[in-house]
Amino acid sequence: MPSAPDATFPPRPIALLSDFGTSDPYVGQVKAVIARMAPGSPCIDLTHDIPPQDVAAGSFALSAVLPYLPGDPVVWAVVDPGVGTQRAAIAVEARARGTGGRLRFVAPDNGLLTEALERLDVATVARLDDPAFHLPDVGATFHGRDLFAPVAAHLARGEEVRRLGTPFDGDSLVRLEITRAARTGNGWRGRVRWVDRFGNLITDLPARAAAERRWWLRAGDASVVGPASTFGSVDSGEGVAYVGSWGTVELAVRDGSAAARWNLGIGDAVELAYG
Amino acid sequence: MPSAPDATFPPRPIALLSDFGTSDPYVGQVKAVIARMAPGSPCIDLTHDIPPQDVAAGSFALSAVLPYLPGDPVVWAVVDPGVGTQRAAIAVEARARGTGGRLRFVAPDNGLLTEALERLDVATVARLDDPAFHLPDVGATFHGRDLFAPVAAHLARGEEVRRLGTPFDGDSLVRLEITRAARTGNGWRGRVRWVDRFGNLITDLPARAAAERRWWLRAGDASVVGPASTFGSVDSGEGVAYVGSWGTVELAVRDGSAAARWNLGIGDAVELAYG
Amino acid sequence: MPSAPDATFPPRPIALLSDFGTSDPYVGQVKAVIARMAPGSPCIDLTHDIPPQDVAAGSFALSAVLPYLPGDPVVWAVVDPGVGTQRAAIAVEARARGTGGRLRFVAPDNGLLTEALERLDVATVARLDDPAFHLPDVGATFHGRDLFAPVAAHLARGEEVRRLGTPFDGDSLVRLEITRAARTGNGWRGRVRWVDRFGNLITDLPARAAAERRWWLRAGDASVVGPASTFGSVDSGEGVAYVGSWGTVELAVRDGSAAARWNLGIGDAVELAYG
Repeated sequence: MPSAPDATFPPRPIALLSDFGTSDPYVGQVKAVIARMAPGSPCIDLTHDIPPQDVAAGSFALSAVLPYLPGDPVVWAVVDPGVGTQRAAIAVEARARGTGGRLRFVAPDNGLLTEALERLDVATVARLDDPAFHLPDVGATFHGRDLFAPVAAHLARGEEVRRLGTPFDGDSLVRLEITRAARTGNGWRGRVRWVDRFGNLITDLPARAAAERRWWLRAGDASVVGPASTFGSVDSGEGVAYVGSWGTVELAVRDGSAAARWNLGIGDAVELAYG
Repeated sequence: MPSAPDATFPPRPIALLSDFGTSDPYVGQVKAVIARMAPGSPCIDLTHDIPPQDVAAGSFALSAVLPYLPGDPVVWAVVDPGVGTQRAAIAVEARARGTGGRLRFVAPDNGLLTEALERLDVATVARLDDPAFHLPDVGATFHGRDLFAPVAAHLARGEEVRRLGTPFDGDSLVRLEITRAARTGNGWRGRVRWVDRFGNLITDLPARAAAERRWWLRAGDASVVGPASTFGSVDSGEGVAYVGSWGTVELAVRDGSAAARWNLGIGDAVELAYG
Repeated sequence: MPSAPDATFPPRPIALLSDFGTSDPYVGQVKAVIARMAPGSPCIDLTHDIPPQDVAAGSFALSAVLPYLPGDPVVWAVVDPGVGTQRAAIAVEARARGTGGRLRFVAPDNGLLTEALERLDVATVARLDDPAFHLPDVGATFHGRDLFAPVAAHLARGEEVRRLGTPFDGDSLVRLEITRAARTGNGWRGRVRWVDRFGNLITDLPARAAAERRWWLRAGDASVVGPASTFGSVDSGEGVAYVGSWGTVELAVRDGSAAARWNLGIGDAVELAYG
């Protein structure tokens, strides 16, 4: 049962990540519910353009933006192909490794938090099975609005994760089996995890893979020497590889699209070779 | 003439719905005007991707989101193919049937509020003909910014609808002639009213049409048995029909696009047959 | 070194303009950094769909929206093809000609402010070379998040431009060489500067060019008589030219796309001829 809200100012922010897109009134309804139940809590759209139903891409994007969130955030993360099935809805309270700052999440228990959890120490997990914290009529198709939005609003107003439903063990959370970037005899092997609007290919090759000496990045027909620190180090139309803003190695074409040039996308293999 | 604003906290929210898209600086200017004239009032984007100039689609979407709006909202709704013609600009104060909550609207008087009004009891209507509430220079092409935005800001700060211009009779508001879903001998006949980014087809067939027994939904070449309560009840790639988050019957393809599969779109006929 | 923030309420708004698009989590990270460092400051998205790396289009759009910004805004403007090169990052404090209202900008020094500056009197310029105002780790590829966002937050909280880095002369700011609309023997010559989602072609021909008598607007295969004050003055499917919401002459097709009809886009020549 909801407890009395505390009065915090500025109110706790709610960060939103989904695959809902922005052309339908779906995200608007989510924010309207939040505005009704947690007036004053700012909503920050991280992105609503996770590729539809791509839980792994959502996991990667959420993990990448974690270090930039405002203090004590509530994160509403919904990429939910199993909405209406038996998958659980969960809330998670955790602390960031390093800073110790608190973060709380509401999400389907389908692996969407997999890579975020690797940066966090989980304190409390609850299955969101108490309808007192939901909208009166929860449909089978839009838990983002009917269930996750009101729970996020309760959290923003001071409710505790442990009171939102049945607690369970954080080790039991569903986790995706994601093949990670790994060392090879002469470098690293990884994958494209995101393609941005500029056609830049964001890989999972860690920054430390690119720190040493000189290397080649190869993916499909692409073969680019690194490390370049900036776009300014190559001519227009040339390929360039560098440690990008996601904290990993990126492959790009100056003033062009690497994705289009080499016909590469999410999931494609990349190889970094020293020498 | 504007009266002194009252001091409300949290300030009244302004919900925005239009066909402006988000790639041009149009919505940004609207929100900038609101931020200037009603600082602290949160703007909630319901959607700006109503199909261009499709007043009927705007009417349907606005009506569907009404139950989710925050308390005492101002709704700025602009799908306005007749901007610059003799169509009136209006403000409407109304009460929600059921809850009795107040809602206020600014919109062109072109039928955009048609379906919203069916859920409301209209209290006051004013023609927005007092330039004291507009920007100093109102052009002929962008009343969303020059006229509706400042009026919405005045309302959010406590101005009364009846003071914004010449009052007139709510029964005189322009209403679209929308063919409604209707009973047939053995079921219901309706139409597709929205297609979302996932290719789901949202119809106007009411939830009660789908409550009983077993039925078939037919549209073009599609023929799907219902009711399914969730996507989980069919295999990937199969058609599914259910009462969706808009409160009406939807036709979808699990992990696919119903719009693409059957080449269906807004306005296409659908039939629900029992048995 | 950052000074103590002042306490302003409502907090100063931050207006955002970029070519980042909204499908990636880039704008979300920018707003998250701002929410962390300047809680309560509302972010207003002017647009994030400047054509990628098109500094001149950004200059035009920014200039057009200036008159609509809220009071005492901080403007975060990032179209930055030279990120990571030697181009400077700057903050500018200025007064609007006419109203005298203060505006402050953070932007790359690459000409993005060119047309905005023509409406402003510059008071102070600083090169953003003091890392005390940046995120701890500034990468080479995303100054929008790592450098411009925290500086914008400092400004919103009361920091002074002159304290953000090394001052320099406003006359030294990089300015684009933009060919301006100019008089001809019998009218004006100009260019298309923006194409909006409706396919309307926004030119740089000033309102005063269209104020007199009767004229023809010609561009490629288009030849349209003016001035029309509204869309209502022509039939559906016909071309129409008028002074639009950008303050300049626009060429449109009622219920259609002028860009598609005549295959015209940014940079194409337009001619306005009297008689």
